[in-house]
Amino acid sequence: MAKTVVAPGPRDERGVLSARILEAARESFAEHGSAGTTIRAVARAADVDPALVYHYFGSKEGLLDAATAPPSRWLQKVAETWSTPRDQLAAQLLRTVMSSWEDDEIGPTLRAVVLTAAHEPTTREKLRTIVERSLIGQSSLGEDEAERLTRSALISSQLMGFALVRYVWKIEPLASMTEDQVLAAMTPVLQHYVDGDLDPST
Amino acid sequence: MAKTVVAPGPRDERGVLSARILEAARESFAEHGSAGTTIRAVARAADVDPALVYHYFGSKEGLLDAATAPPSRWLQKVAETWSTPRDQLAAQLLRTVMSSWEDDEIGPTLRAVVLTAAHEPTTREKLRTIVERSLIGQSSLGEDEAERLTRSALISSQLMGFALVRYVWKIEPLASMTEDQVLAAMTPVLQHYVDGDLDPST
Repeated sequence: MAKTVVAPGPRDERGVLSARILEAARESFAEHGSAGTTIRAVARAADVDPALVYHYFGSKEGLLDAATAPPSRWLQKVAETWSTPRDQLAAQLLRTVMSSWEDDEIGPTLRAVVLTAAHEPTTREKLRTIVERSLIGQSSLGEDEAERLTRSALISSQLMGFALVRYVWKIEPLASMTEDQVLAAMTPVLQHYVDGDLDPST
Repeated sequence: MAKTVVAPGPRDERGVLSARILEAARESFAEHGSAGTTIRAVARAADVDPALVYHYFGSKEGLLDAATAPPSRWLQKVAETWSTPRDQLAAQLLRTVMSSWEDDEIGPTLRAVVLTAAHEPTTREKLRTIVERSLIGQSSLGEDEAERLTRSALISSQLMGFALVRYVWKIEPLASMTEDQVLAAMTPVLQHYVDGDLDPST
């Protein structure tokens, strides 16, 4: 029966250990910032040797970069969301935001990006890139480029404010609302940004 | 003509120096977090002796507390905004947010609160208090307490997302939109949170 036992090879072990290091790193960067994070403390929290962290990520900057890199399956999910039929786009965007923040890997990564962006210019630049390319860049709203960018930025502002209030700052009652309550309350608002009249004077 | 020259007394001098220290502290806490901020560096940026910072604020914690305290004239302005007639409330809230973030003293304080809240639990608690008491607590929306809190939290989520995108992360095109464009695009959305139907199923 020996063949049913799959011993983790170096690749698998590397994957497991690297995921554990990144998890500890996200937590530390988000809570203490880059200035308050040391490779040694991350290694301790992940229960590995500091040399291994250097071996995998090179430096604290390399670790920060890896810890705040949005998973590719998330970028793909966002891209798919934007291809939702326009009249259902608002609800689908809200569902994607909620399932992303509640995901075991994507949630902590987004949290680390948003919190680290507060005090790390490189991470702020990364956040801006994520928003401008992945959130705004994928959309096909509006009649021209200016309108598309405006609608997407307005949508992003509401979705990010919602995520911060609900998942990061945990302000009630938004933090405890059910998914259905959130959809009922916010879908019409987001849908206005999708296809409503943004300039009533014209 | 000597009487036209008003020499600053100790009180005035204290006010000037303390404002200068707080300005440098807000910048440092927002950019480097509490872990990356030292009294010595703040004193250097404010061009004062570190002993004076200790004398005025006691400790780094005292300095953080003072640097992130919302000015009372801002709290008053927010309270006045909530007493706007309900059908004009959305536009007035947006105007207050924009004038606050563009104010020379209030803007940097709000920025320091939001950015420091990312990695300082005490500041996060303060942010939650500001939102729950000053933003949500002052409102008189809805038919009952649960509805009032829900509407206010939804409004806050959009206003904070807007402020972050426009003033902190400076994501285009929101960062460069004129006040009139912002009002045209966002007033209907906020007004929905003020008096729209939040639960279409009932």
